[in-house]
Amino acid sequence: MSLIVQKYGGTSVGDVDRIRNVAKRVIATVKKGHEVVVVVSAMAGETNRLVALANQASKDPSPREYDQIVSTGEQVTIGLLALCLQDLGQASASFQGHQVKILTDSAHSKARIQKIDAELISKSLKEGKVVVVAGFQGMDVDGNVTTLGRGGSDTTAVALAAALKADLCEIYTDVDGVYTTDPRICPDARKLNKISYDEMLEMASQGAKVLQIRSVEFAAKYHVNLVVRSSFNDNEGTFVVKEDKCMEEVVVSGVSIDENEAKVSVRKLPDQPGIAAKIFGPVADSGVNVDMIVQNLSEDGYTDITFTCPQGDLNQARKIIESIHKETNYARLDADSDIAKVSVIGVGMRSHSGVAAKVFKTLSSKGINIEMISTSEIRISVVVRKDKGKDAVRALHEAFELHKL
Amino acid sequence: MSLIVQKYGGTSVGDVDRIRNVAKRVIATVKKGHEVVVVVSAMAGETNRLVALANQASKDPSPREYDQIVSTGEQVTIGLLALCLQDLGQASASFQGHQVKILTDSAHSKARIQKIDAELISKSLKEGKVVVVAGFQGMDVDGNVTTLGRGGSDTTAVALAAALKADLCEIYTDVDGVYTTDPRICPDARKLNKISYDEMLEMASQGAKVLQIRSVEFAAKYHVNLVVRSSFNDNEGTFVVKEDKCMEEVVVSGVSIDENEAKVSVRKLPDQPGIAAKIFGPVADSGVNVDMIVQNLSEDGYTDITFTCPQGDLNQARKIIESIHKETNYARLDADSDIAKVSVIGVGMRSHSGVAAKVFKTLSSKGINIEMISTSEIRISVVVRKDKGKDAVRALHEAFELHKL
Repeated sequence: MSLIVQKYGGTSVGDVDRIRNVAKRVIATVKKGHEVVVVVSAMAGETNRLVALANQASKDPSPREYDQIVSTGEQVTIGLLALCLQDLGQASASFQGHQVKILTDSAHSKARIQKIDAELISKSLKEGKVVVVAGFQGMDVDGNVTTLGRGGSDTTAVALAAALKADLCEIYTDVDGVYTTDPRICPDARKLNKISYDEMLEMASQGAKVLQIRSVEFAAKYHVNLVVRSSFNDNEGTFVVKEDKCMEEVVVSGVSIDENEAKVSVRKLPDQPGIAAKIFGPVADSGVNVDMIVQNLSEDGYTDITFTCPQGDLNQARKIIESIHKETNYARLDADSDIAKVSVIGVGMRSHSGVAAKVFKTLSSKGINIEMISTSEIRISVVVRKDKGKDAVRALHEAFELHKL
Repeated sequence: MSLIVQKYGGTSVGDVDRIRNVAKRVIATVKKGHEVVVVVSAMAGETNRLVALANQASKDPSPREYDQIVSTGEQVTIGLLALCLQDLGQASASFQGHQVKILTDSAHSKARIQKIDAELISKSLKEGKVVVVAGFQGMDVDGNVTTLGRGGSDTTAVALAAALKADLCEIYTDVDGVYTTDPRICPDARKLNKISYDEMLEMASQGAKVLQIRSVEFAAKYHVNLVVRSSFNDNEGTFVVKEDKCMEEVVVSGVSIDENEAKVSVRKLPDQPGIAAKIFGPVADSGVNVDMIVQNLSEDGYTDITFTCPQGDLNQARKIIESIHKETNYARLDADSDIAKVSVIGVGMRSHSGVAAKVFKTLSSKGINIEMISTSEIRISVVVRKDKGKDAVRALHEAFELHKL
C-alpha cells in the first residue's frame, strides 16, 4: 500500500460532471490498494470571477481581504469532490488550508508554506477516508487566510506529499505530461518519460506552464517523486525525479519559448562604477521581475544596458527608469514588447560542450538574428524577434533531434 | 460612544453597488461616534447557487460537506464589504465564523451557537476598525465548519451583540420593520414602533419572515435590544424589546398568515390509550416538524387525528404513517396542502378576554369556515381554506382596528 497525493487543476474540476470523473479516478486509485490525498484548485473561471468582484469593490484591494475572497473558490471544489466521492460510495472528508494547519508566512497572495500539521490528515486516512484538501490556500500564525499565488495548488500538493512522506505526488492537468517543446508549435514534439528537477525548473522558468516553479523547488528540496499526467486519459505522464546518470547522456531535453517578455534598453549611460546598481536597485524595489541582463562593452566612456521583464511589468519599469533620469543621465530609453525568448535545456550540457555553438549555428542558418544571450549550467536562452520565435523553436527541436527517443 | 451590531441580509448585499451602500451606512454610524460590528449574509441568490451545486454532486449531500460549500457565500460578502469600507477610507477587517471562534454544536446545517470568543473582535474595534463578521456560520469543537440554518445570520448578529454586550443590534432588511400584517395583503397595515420578544416569536413562528425565530429567543434570553429596519431608507424601524405595561393595553398587535403548511388527517383510528404516541413518535423521529394537532371526540370507539406540518415535510409524514398502518389500524389517510393558517397575536390577550370569540365571529360573518383551532397564551391560530386565507387576514385586521395607532 502506497500513499499517493493527487492534484487536479481548474480545468479538470471545471464543472460537477468533471469533478465526478475526478472522483472516479480517485476511487480507481483507492481500489488498487492505495491511500489517497487529493488537492484541488477552484473550478475553471471561478478565481477570475472572484477577482473581478474584489476589483469592483476596491480600486486597490487589500491583500488580506483579497485572499479571504478568492480562497472560497477552492473551498467549494473540495466540498463538491467530497460529495461526489461519497455519492459513489467512497468515504471522504474535505479540509480547508486552516483546517489541516497549512501554516504560511503573512505575504498575502504570494504566501510561502512554513509548516503542515499532518496529524489530522493521517487520522482521516486511517479511518479509510479519501482526504480532499483545498489547494492554493493556508493560514498565517494570526489565523488570517493566505493564498500562495496562481498555480499555488501544485505547491500545496507537493508540500503535503513532503509532510506526509507520500510515495508519489501526481499532478493531473490537461496535457499528457512534459514535452520536448510545445506540440502546438512543433507537431513532432515528444512526451518525456522523465525529467530532472533542475530541467523542470528551467522549463517552468522559461515559459513552460505545466508546473508552478515553487512546487518544483519544493519537490527537489524534499525529494518528492512527482509525475505530471492528464486527467482526461490514462497515459503515463512525465516523472520529475532526481537526476541520474543516464539523463546526462541526453544533451538537450527540451526547447521552450516565452512570448510574454519585453526588452528595455537604456542607451548611452556614462560608464561609471555603480551605474548598474543605480538602475536595478530602484527597478527591483518596485517589484519588477527582471530576467536577462546584458551590458555592452563600453565605448567613449558610455555603455548600454538592456534587460528583459514580463510585459505586465513593462510600464512600471519604464516609469522607474524615467524617474531616475537625472541621476543616471542616459541618452535614450527604448522599450520593445515584440520579442520571444527561446531556451534550450538539458542536464547533459554539464558534460557536453558545443551546445551553444550548435544553437547559434542553427539559428544563423535559418536567418534568425539573436538579440540577447543568457546561459545557465543547463540552459541557453536567446532573445529573437517575436515573429521568428516559433521558427527558432522548430529549428532547434530538429537540430537536436528531440523527436527521436 | 455605543457599540452597535448591524446585520444586513442577502438583498441588502445583492451586488457590489449595494454592498458599497451598506459600507456608507456603516460609516455614517461610525461618524456618529459608535463602534460598529457588521454581520452579513451571502449575496442574494448565492446560497441557492451553492446548494444547487451540492445537489448536483450528490443526491443526498452529507451535512458536513454541504456546510463546507454553502459557508463560502458569506465569506465572499465579508471580504467585499471590508474592501468597500477600506475603499471609502474606513479601516476594517473581515472574519469568518471560525476566525472569531463562533463555537457551535456539530448539528450541521442547523447548528446552535454555544460560545463566542469576543477577544479578537474587541481588539480590532480598539484599533479603530469596523469588524465585519460572516453570518450563518460557525465551527464545532473539532474544527468543522457548521451553519446555523436559513436566516442564521440574524442569530449570529444577536449572539455577537450578547457576547460583546452591545448597546443595540440593528437588523437591516428589505422592509421598514414589523407590520401589523403583510402590507401586500392588507394595504392599510401599519408599522409597529415596538413589539415584545414574545409577540415577535409568535409572529416569526406563524409565518412572518422578518426575523429568524432562534435570533428572537436569543435576544429575549440575553436581553439584547433589537431593532428591525430597512437598509434602503432611514425610517425608524421596529424595536423588539422586553414587554412593558403599556403593551398590555393593546389587545392584538398583529395578524400573520402561513400558506406553506399542509394538513394530514388519520381517520377512524381505534380510540385506545397511546394511539397518539404511536403516530407522533415515528413522525417526530423522522424529522417532520409537526405544528398544530387536533384529536376529535371519540365515536363508536373510533377517533380522528389531524395535524399540520410544512408542505415540504408532507411526503415524509405520509410515508411514515403508511408504514405504521398495521400497528395503528386506521381506516383512511388524507393529506391536504390547500390550507392557510391565520394567527392573531398580542400580549394583551393575557389580560383581555373575548379575543377568540371575536376571531370566530369575524370569520363567520365573512362566511369563512374554520377547520382547525390552536391557541397559546398570546395567540389564536385557525386553519382555513387557502383561497380564504387573505380574506381572513383582512377581516381580522379590520375587526381589531390594527390600522389605527
